[in-house]
Amino acid sequence: MRAPRITIFNEFRHEQRDAAVRDIYPDGIHVALADGLRASAEAGGHPAPVVRYALLDDPGHGLEGDVLEKTDTLIWWGHEAHADVSDEAAARVQQAVLSGMGLIVLHSAHFSKPFRLLMGTNCSLHWREADDHERLWNLEPAHPLLEGIPDSFVLEQEEMYGERFDVPAPAEVLLLSWFSGGEVFRSLCTWRRGHGRVVYFRPGHETYPTYYDPNVKQIIANAGRWAARTVNRSTAEAPNAAVPPEQER
Amino acid sequence: MRAPRITIFNEFRHEQRDAAVRDIYPDGIHVALADGLRASAEAGGHPAPVVRYALLDDPGHGLEGDVLEKTDTLIWWGHEAHADVSDEAAARVQQAVLSGMGLIVLHSAHFSKPFRLLMGTNCSLHWREADDHERLWNLEPAHPLLEGIPDSFVLEQEEMYGERFDVPAPAEVLLLSWFSGGEVFRSLCTWRRGHGRVVYFRPGHETYPTYYDPNVKQIIANAGRWAARTVNRSTAEAPNAAVPPEQER
Amino acid sequence: MRAPRITIFNEFRHEQRDAAVRDIYPDGIHVALADGLRASAEAGGHPAPVVRYALLDDPGHGLEGDVLEKTDTLIWWGHEAHADVSDEAAARVQQAVLSGMGLIVLHSAHFSKPFRLLMGTNCSLHWREADDHERLWNLEPAHPLLEGIPDSFVLEQEEMYGERFDVPAPAEVLLLSWFSGGEVFRSLCTWRRGHGRVVYFRPGHETYPTYYDPNVKQIIANAGRWAARTVNRSTAEAPNAAVPPEQER
Amino acid sequence: MRAPRITIFNEFRHEQRDAAVRDIYPDGIHVALADGLRASAEAGGHPAPVVRYALLDDPGHGLEGDVLEKTDTLIWWGHEAHADVSDEAAARVQQAVLSGMGLIVLHSAHFSKPFRLLMGTNCSLHWREADDHERLWNLEPAHPLLEGIPDSFVLEQEEMYGERFDVPAPAEVLLLSWFSGGEVFRSLCTWRRGHGRVVYFRPGHETYPTYYDPNVKQIIANAGRWAARTVNRSTAEAPNAAVPPEQER
Repeated sequence: MRAPRITIFNEFRHEQRDAAVRDIYPDGIHVALADGLRASAEAGGHPAPVVRYALLDDPGHGLEGDVLEKTDTLIWWGHEAHADVSDEAAARVQQAVLSGMGLIVLHSAHFSKPFRLLMGTNCSLHWREADDHERLWNLEPAHPLLEGIPDSFVLEQEEMYGERFDVPAPAEVLLLSWFSGGEVFRSLCTWRRGHGRVVYFRPGHETYPTYYDPNVKQIIANAGRWAARTVNRSTAEAPNAAVPPEQER
Repeated sequence: MRAPRITIFNEFRHEQRDAAVRDIYPDGIHVALADGLRASAEAGGHPAPVVRYALLDDPGHGLEGDVLEKTDTLIWWGHEAHADVSDEAAARVQQAVLSGMGLIVLHSAHFSKPFRLLMGTNCSLHWREADDHERLWNLEPAHPLLEGIPDSFVLEQEEMYGERFDVPAPAEVLLLSWFSGGEVFRSLCTWRRGHGRVVYFRPGHETYPTYYDPNVKQIIANAGRWAARTVNRSTAEAPNAAVPPEQER
Repeated sequence: MRAPRITIFNEFRHEQRDAAVRDIYPDGIHVALADGLRASAEAGGHPAPVVRYALLDDPGHGLEGDVLEKTDTLIWWGHEAHADVSDEAAARVQQAVLSGMGLIVLHSAHFSKPFRLLMGTNCSLHWREADDHERLWNLEPAHPLLEGIPDSFVLEQEEMYGERFDVPAPAEVLLLSWFSGGEVFRSLCTWRRGHGRVVYFRPGHETYPTYYDPNVKQIIANAGRWAARTVNRSTAEAPNAAVPPEQER
Repeated sequence: MRAPRITIFNEFRHEQRDAAVRDIYPDGIHVALADGLRASAEAGGHPAPVVRYALLDDPGHGLEGDVLEKTDTLIWWGHEAHADVSDEAAARVQQAVLSGMGLIVLHSAHFSKPFRLLMGTNCSLHWREADDHERLWNLEPAHPLLEGIPDSFVLEQEEMYGERFDVPAPAEVLLLSWFSGGEVFRSLCTWRRGHGRVVYFRPGHETYPTYYDPNVKQIIANAGRWAARTVNRSTAEAPNAAVPPEQER
């Protein structure tokens, strides 16, 4: 198995502007995510991923040229600036997924443009910033996304996300979250769109050190491998099959 | 059960321009569809639907004001002029479905803007205009969409649509088509999006009298009832659940 | 719409032996369920269901002769005596579902023979009798099973059932439960098996007055209508299609 | 990735009794299948599978002791003697799948006991032995089961299997078959049951050299890897979670 080429998109604004966030992620959430990917690969005996960053304020958000074509899995973190992602870039991410690229959507990126385009729904949910604790229950311990994950684990402080999550019924619901305030959430979900795989993973509010949690890191690393591109084929064209295959026999 | 309010969107251009199509559908495909809905309701003892037309070249495509809000099921036929539907109208249809309206997408409307927005994929397929005959196999005779439909039926002449159909895996695949030239197709599919139901039904090329076929008419009438709106609730907002429900007990 | 013929299977042993249960359900859980069905039908303007009881200790469990064939929906409550249901009766219930009968499986009947036969899995789960309270979250307010049900509701005391629930991925997950002790559960699920519909609904421990709760009653009544038989066709035979349909044209 | 341990169950009666079948598969279908697995592994740079045979007329069908526990994927071919498989062995195969073993069900094994137990349905279909040719259409070229498979391929002679196939809606439908006589079939399907994966693959009538077809061999080899066990955990028990996790924090 060759090394997956993983691109991490990050808004990278909270970390630069807000000291509390910078204290947790001094180099940005994208760097913490990349460190987790590398550590998991090393621990699991997998080839180290080839990581690239794509930051919102980079030219073309860092997603221009052949970046997407040469990406096996794109990880997306965004929160306050979804509108600053160009429609053109969002549409190219959508087409890249349909052509075979994997997409891992983290936390508040439920409202990101590429995820909404791919889901076709509003992707709304209930939320509360109130230091809930979150308990995540493992519905499918045999699934590759949950390799190495216990039957449940706790995040001591997280933003609450509660149902109803306005997404199409997932192909797989792999984790369900329980929140101390009384809510539940489908926290790890997968869909196939075109030739690509889409994963949504709930945790990761910027004011908590969630992306240093070993289970969270492991799941993102598993997802990076599992969703990786196997083909690169556009689905945009509708070919005229002018000659019936039965006639060609 | 109250009468469903059904709006039929039709491009209505082939019928005005092309004598061969006009010979088959002199008043337009929309009128043939409406006649089928009414006849099926009468035969089945259901309340007659309240039918409204929305034509591409009507002002606002006939979809402005409270039309969508007062529509339980929207039927959509389009072919050569998908690009002439305004993005704004397509987005309003998408939101209406997410809020609870049913949407029945016919034949070449696989490439219509509202369907593509709701699916999030390219909705491409293979096709051939060559007088194939089509045999449709009934996978779920107990499903309400297939009430009154035999285990298989034949359309003597139809345009061929072949896989791969680039749509998200349907919640239900209810009919599979066999074509004489050698292809197969998932011809009757359902999805739930937001609070609404989406149905795709393959047959209906404008140069064939498909919408007079009794089985085709019955399926569209069944779908009009089955997909009808039960709620009208936007999913656009993400409410702040500031007070934990456990605290309110 | 004609009146659904609903058969309620009940073990009816706790109620006869255990005074605490009898205090809650003096005539048996089956009678409380039937009262709920009738009240909901009356309130909703639906035809009153034709209710029949089938008790474990009745001859043939009350399921012999043409009972199943003349049942549109079978509701099943069992807990401590699953093993006392004959294999032959369980197999006949399985075949009746495959032929089109609806089956509503309540609470501890997750371990009943008919449900396990239809699921093909062990249907295990975690549990705790400890006066948890349960909050049920409505994922699909537009679904017929949830007509009239609020976005969430609470049962003040219930037995806890927690994931992992060993069932095939449901076609639809309609309610998720939150328990005060920390667990979550997929509490209202549907599957299609053969020509029949199967519904699992979690609440209903015999030591709590759960089946008097208005939301619980409403959901069971909705399910009784929604799952009702539309066909009666065995799927047991594999017919030899000796003459190709293409040859018969 | 370590070498998958693959057990091939074969009735091995046609080949011993019927000269026409023996001419095609002189050492038995199981040996042809094993050769295909090894050749595919070598061609793809995968570790060679550790193959074991389990024949119907072996003691305990070759499935006793720790065979199932030490099997990552079980391949099953049976046709005329499903009834000769003991109920006890079938139940152990079912439990092995629920505990994490993969199961690949070939052709006429749609009626095998383990498959029927896992599906919970009758698994019936239409059939015809009449030298139809079969064209298989690839719905998901990016799926690991279809690695290396073209967009369609033809089997020059095969038994026809036609819908309706009485199985639960598959998690994934990956190939659709077109038959020259007029029928269609969902020919490559997957389900998750317990911790295990189940694959049904249609082709393989004993009077045709189907298991020498390169695409058929490739798909079976892909499936052997894809479905391989990742855990070994029984789902039979329902643990009492007597202490609420929230109390243990």
